[in-house]
Amino acid sequence: MGIVLQSVNVKQFTKHSTRNSLRRIFLYHGLLVKLNSMGVRRVYSYTLAEGAGVTPEQVRKDFSEYGIRGNRRGGYSPGSVITEMETLFKRDRITNVILVGMGNLGQALSKYARFIKRGINIVATFDIDPFKQKSRDEMQVYPPRRLQEIIDRFHVTVAIVAVPDISAQDVCNELVGMGIRGIVNFSPVLLKVPDYVIVNNVNLSDEIESVIWSVYRMRENQSLYL
Amino acid sequence: MGIVLQSVNVKQFTKHSTRNSLRRIFLYHGLLVKLNSMGVRRVYSYTLAEGAGVTPEQVRKDFSEYGIRGNRRGGYSPGSVITEMETLFKRDRITNVILVGMGNLGQALSKYARFIKRGINIVATFDIDPFKQKSRDEMQVYPPRRLQEIIDRFHVTVAIVAVPDISAQDVCNELVGMGIRGIVNFSPVLLKVPDYVIVNNVNLSDEIESVIWSVYRMRENQSLYL
Repeated sequence: MGIVLQSVNVKQFTKHSTRNSLRRIFLYHGLLVKLNSMGVRRVYSYTLAEGAGVTPEQVRKDFSEYGIRGNRRGGYSPGSVITEMETLFKRDRITNVILVGMGNLGQALSKYARFIKRGINIVATFDIDPFKQKSRDEMQVYPPRRLQEIIDRFHVTVAIVAVPDISAQDVCNELVGMGIRGIVNFSPVLLKVPDYVIVNNVNLSDEIESVIWSVYRMRENQSLYL
Repeated sequence: MGIVLQSVNVKQFTKHSTRNSLRRIFLYHGLLVKLNSMGVRRVYSYTLAEGAGVTPEQVRKDFSEYGIRGNRRGGYSPGSVITEMETLFKRDRITNVILVGMGNLGQALSKYARFIKRGINIVATFDIDPFKQKSRDEMQVYPPRRLQEIIDRFHVTVAIVAVPDISAQDVCNELVGMGIRGIVNFSPVLLKVPDYVIVNNVNLSDEIESVIWSVYRMRENQSLYL
């Protein structure tokens, strides 16, 4: 199986981070749902491009990469494109995931009601801290020694990791050894994983800092003109 | 000033979402810090490319866009590039930000110790709920009527928004009217803002769903070979 995983077709989906095109597809989906609910019946690639901060060529390229057609004569039909996307991404499917690390962020994520609406079902949470395991909250917190059992029982392949930096790589190695194939990593550490594991690093500080920096930059440019 | 803001130099930093190149620069920074701490003294663009899931050409293009040189003879010196990046992004600067919406996610963000280490200083949090305003937690929660006063007092230009979908656009409009120029939006709603405001939509469900989808896709491709 190691050899199979090296093949080109597989390799293109096994980059260390999820692909930007995929992020953009989800962004277009959000825009289309909004436009559709506003009664818009024809959407042009430049509308989606503007909303997503890319070029219209990029939109068409992304659509083509995922085989989304959506009836382009005189603009896309939002309804058709949404249906195509939701079929493609099987939005009606429910996926069991686990959450490791029940600090502030982990706790917030475990209570995030949006996830289940999107078919993301957190079946169990884990923390090394015995105090957290005893909490009487809605969501049971398990000790790490029960990881394998729960991964197997619920056929879990995706884990959300929100542990401190220092333990992130160890936790990741352990999860991969237990069969986890996708990791959403909230620790500000870049994880090293085998080729057949997908990691999405979500760095909240980076998300905020990039806005701060863009605002500073905009102001500096403005002042050149004042 | 409206005319000034339409100029090309400004416009390129006023896309509705922060630019992907900027996200990648932060990612390269993280990789370089890691490699540097491991004692690596020479880094090649393909090393950064592999870590970030892009091509080496993309790395060089991104470096060139931000004017990062880092002494390329026989690979980049991690130390030099890190210094260049930190000077460019003024990592020693502290920026006051506000946080609007103290639900589960807002509370977690308000307690997120990483932010201050990165110069992101949450000076105040806001919620419409009087119960939350009375909480005896470390962080004071203010009512929205005090927004303008606090924005002015602390010279705040960037806000983190973690309110329910239904109020996100109204909150955003209000903040822009009060002088906010950058918004990190955690509501799964695509905000409409004027050209001179930067919005970064952080959609946690999308981040997780993209991993789930990539794992499914990888398995489907695998099964073609088995």
